[in-house]
Amino acid sequence: MKFGVLGSGAVGHAIGNKLIQLGHEVCMGSRESSNEKGLAFARANTPKSTNGTFADAAEVGEVLFNCTSGKASLDALAIAGEKNLAGKVLVDVANPLDFSKGMPPSMLTPSTDSLAEQIQRAHPKCKVVKALNTMNCALMVDPKRLSSGNHDVLMCGNDKGAKGQVSELLQSFGWKSIIDLGDLTAARGLEMFLPLWVRLYSTFQTPDFNIKVVR
Amino acid sequence: MKFGVLGSGAVGHAIGNKLIQLGHEVCMGSRESSNEKGLAFARANTPKSTNGTFADAAEVGEVLFNCTSGKASLDALAIAGEKNLAGKVLVDVANPLDFSKGMPPSMLTPSTDSLAEQIQRAHPKCKVVKALNTMNCALMVDPKRLSSGNHDVLMCGNDKGAKGQVSELLQSFGWKSIIDLGDLTAARGLEMFLPLWVRLYSTFQTPDFNIKVVR
Repeated sequence: MKFGVLGSGAVGHAIGNKLIQLGHEVCMGSRESSNEKGLAFARANTPKSTNGTFADAAEVGEVLFNCTSGKASLDALAIAGEKNLAGKVLVDVANPLDFSKGMPPSMLTPSTDSLAEQIQRAHPKCKVVKALNTMNCALMVDPKRLSSGNHDVLMCGNDKGAKGQVSELLQSFGWKSIIDLGDLTAARGLEMFLPLWVRLYSTFQTPDFNIKVVR
Repeated sequence: MKFGVLGSGAVGHAIGNKLIQLGHEVCMGSRESSNEKGLAFARANTPKSTNGTFADAAEVGEVLFNCTSGKASLDALAIAGEKNLAGKVLVDVANPLDFSKGMPPSMLTPSTDSLAEQIQRAHPKCKVVKALNTMNCALMVDPKRLSSGNHDVLMCGNDKGAKGQVSELLQSFGWKSIIDLGDLTAARGLEMFLPLWVRLYSTFQTPDFNIKVVR
């Protein structure tokens, strides 16, 4: 399958490399097609891996990942372009955190909204699924590195078919427990979890942890 | 030991009854000393259990619990009175959630602040420790009802001695894993976890769950 990964930071590389490992084709999108990290990604697994602008990646991908930083996501998706997003599943991994005033970070969105909902409103024909944003990127694509994968990934979205597709994809990443929290308003809670995640990270001095919902 | 429990709702009763079970004396405070639930609490275990106003409970208690609703907490503590709070440990269990516009709830505090910090600022001589706010009250006082107690309680506060005291108290409740997230600014993350908690509650249709941090 063909994927478009928007964002060439650590998260984009983790997701992109995992998709390549699983046999998919991946175009990594950056603001400029000359982006060094995008070029490095393309070189590493050519011809399965390619790179380009946000619009190139969104055009090539049948399923898209938003791996840009939360504060840049709306811009990046506007550049990607409505015609390249319409009808496609977009897995939104980003978090709208503001680190500009130091630690702890604050939220860029009020508690009555979320980045995922902002993206969905800006691109109503795109099928936004929020997932994987509650953990470090190494864990997103390799849940078994902790406790034999005995912990949870959370997701939400308005389109059942899209969530079904993302669920299968997450299983292919190794996820055994996928909790569907319902419609996209649940993204508020998923994004507002991050200030706690950041404190846990500071406390443990490692990003290698995740939550398990014990019942 | 003598405890003051501010609030006569389900949380106040759960905490108050547990403290009585453990052999402590508890005064439950309400807005009016004629509060029916407060009177019922006092009758159930007299003379170890008593009731009164917020000021009565705060005066009697050597350690205090804020079990009022988040939107009423600052008022309740103002009524409790500075002289009754000064120098004492206050375990803040409340959550500043706004359900007035339906589900999902929004936060009453911006992401740059928390109810616990507001309480600490209003009562600088009180030693505020945020704890137990991330779960249902039945679980707060009986962690073993789930998974043999193999899940986590999170806390934070500015006073190390106060956190040590609260930690011992939590152990007496049955908690085996207590994670100290540092100073009181971590209360932002602990309180912003609640919108996710509410979605998990809606998804599972039971409040009988908690998180475990898997490492």
